[in-house]
Amino acid sequence: MSHSNVETLSWHGDRFGSLKMIDQTLLPTEIKVIECHNIETVWEAIKMLRVRGAPAIGIAAAYGVCIGLQTLPPHADVTAFSNRLDEVIAYLASSRPTAVNLFWALDRMKAKAETLYTAASVAEIGERLFAEAKAIHEEDRHICRTIGRFGQELIKDGSTWLTHCNAGGLATADYGTALAVFFAATESGKKIHVFADETRPLLQGARLTTWELMQRGIDVTLICDSMAAQVMRQGKIDGVVVGADRIAANGDTANKIGTYGVAVSAKVHGVPFYVAAPISTFDLSLSEGNQIPIEERSADEICYGFGLRTAPAGVKVYNPAFDVTPAELIAGIITERGIIAPVHRQNVEKMVRSISPTF
Amino acid sequence: MSHSNVETLSWHGDRFGSLKMIDQTLLPTEIKVIECHNIETVWEAIKMLRVRGAPAIGIAAAYGVCIGLQTLPPHADVTAFSNRLDEVIAYLASSRPTAVNLFWALDRMKAKAETLYTAASVAEIGERLFAEAKAIHEEDRHICRTIGRFGQELIKDGSTWLTHCNAGGLATADYGTALAVFFAATESGKKIHVFADETRPLLQGARLTTWELMQRGIDVTLICDSMAAQVMRQGKIDGVVVGADRIAANGDTANKIGTYGVAVSAKVHGVPFYVAAPISTFDLSLSEGNQIPIEERSADEICYGFGLRTAPAGVKVYNPAFDVTPAELIAGIITERGIIAPVHRQNVEKMVRSISPTF
Repeated sequence: MSHSNVETLSWHGDRFGSLKMIDQTLLPTEIKVIECHNIETVWEAIKMLRVRGAPAIGIAAAYGVCIGLQTLPPHADVTAFSNRLDEVIAYLASSRPTAVNLFWALDRMKAKAETLYTAASVAEIGERLFAEAKAIHEEDRHICRTIGRFGQELIKDGSTWLTHCNAGGLATADYGTALAVFFAATESGKKIHVFADETRPLLQGARLTTWELMQRGIDVTLICDSMAAQVMRQGKIDGVVVGADRIAANGDTANKIGTYGVAVSAKVHGVPFYVAAPISTFDLSLSEGNQIPIEERSADEICYGFGLRTAPAGVKVYNPAFDVTPAELIAGIITERGIIAPVHRQNVEKMVRSISPTF
Repeated sequence: MSHSNVETLSWHGDRFGSLKMIDQTLLPTEIKVIECHNIETVWEAIKMLRVRGAPAIGIAAAYGVCIGLQTLPPHADVTAFSNRLDEVIAYLASSRPTAVNLFWALDRMKAKAETLYTAASVAEIGERLFAEAKAIHEEDRHICRTIGRFGQELIKDGSTWLTHCNAGGLATADYGTALAVFFAATESGKKIHVFADETRPLLQGARLTTWELMQRGIDVTLICDSMAAQVMRQGKIDGVVVGADRIAANGDTANKIGTYGVAVSAKVHGVPFYVAAPISTFDLSLSEGNQIPIEERSADEICYGFGLRTAPAGVKVYNPAFDVTPAELIAGIITERGIIAPVHRQNVEKMVRSISPTF
């Protein structure tokens, strides 16, 4: 997705080039581009949510691996290459230890390297890993478009939807996951209205989702998270679509804190609740959602989030980054291979283990 | 309730004196006292939530009436007095047209005056109205203590409670309504833990509730509103107590936006949900909650709340100040006359129409 001609993530040059990304913590008041020439900058950007959203984190991490390999001496051997690769991957993995797409991308880069160690030169492996990072980036564009295409079939002309957090172009290479559904519906000529939860503590909904929707001319209304139940009770909401950070084998879905409360309200008010996420978000090694580790973040995000202290010094704070929405509250999971519905273990496994279409 | 020797509301001098109040919009980082010498200052303080909480607004309005009468010439006759009184009341009533305690207090001042017009001098009526304002203030102290005493019987030693917004000493003359229950439980020797919703957009929970509880040594943890469902799911919450802005004849309760979502979550998780409110909060002229008018507030509270723009310029915003929790989600309403439970029309009417004990 292009924002004033700035892409969420873009690579400049050959494999010795650099990664540029929008600093999403400054949006919507400032569009600042960070240029990453070393892995410390990539690590910090992931850690501090300058780049965020499961797919975008994966892409940043894959390019981060390429950046980490740039410091190898020109005549390093395969052992040195492999050691450096492991070091870079371990380092990047420590930036956000609960982000499944981070590990998915790092594992994919590692697996690619391992197929090449015996047959290729170090320069060639470097080239092929760079091609792999670009492929991850390109595939994500395609995946988002496909999720949008499947998801928009759920959307009726004139309907009103709610979303939480930001699963838009800023969270992905291009087009988003949850927001892809709205973009595709609009592109197919349907007129829709969207309520965006502001999404405390970091306000991704207020700062990013409203901005992306407004840029595409979609009618959006911003509300506080605590108002979602009320607008559902007023009969204003026809459906909910959110993204996902990680999905267990039974369909339980970890997403931004507050998602679970939205799902509970949706259930009580008879509003269908959908998740939109690429297949890479599924972690079949986790049988159920209660096995998903929940990152706890700094108290300052809640007490000092707007440049102003808004809670007493020393107050105790609980700040989980995610919650887990149980499969039984989810009407369907929209993936690039189709919609999983009803959401249960057999349907999840069938879709995730199916042969991926060739891009 | 005393805060570093500053009371939420206090009157200084005789009926020609002034009203002092803490500017609650600056807490907890700054304790600034506003001194009101004219009704414009009182009006602005109510409008801008410098004084907030249903009972505190009523007390401020009653004293505001006395301030408004100070400008009458010394030899005004009863007609001039009555005209000025009507003018002052109409003006103060326009500060927050949905605050029932505002009207309750203004009506009470007006009714008092009407019993005196034929029998007393203008100076005497002024004195008696000043005495009435002080009585409203004093009664509120007593009511809060009594609500605390009834409510604390619901609280088990070692239990954990959730509250939303601020219904504490800052919202009343002294001791709070919802928080009175926690204060009284603690004073009776029970050890409790409280989760406080931060309560967007104005963060009364983060700024005020945590502060009041910490000042009294009660173990409090601050969360974002969107985390309440999650902590209930984790089994951390034994019960919820909130205040109320207005209660209809069937028990439907208007309170700070987000209360309804908490009540829905509480129901789904089997957590009892209580309202604590003085009898003056009931409005038997409203048969059901859907007749309660909902104040909509400025978009800036959501987009520009803390000195920093956190949403795109021009974004559409929906900002209702309250929502209505239907009676069937409420386990009991704790009043100064006892607990209404189960909450339905007959029980509400019985309690509200019962003879008030003499203070």
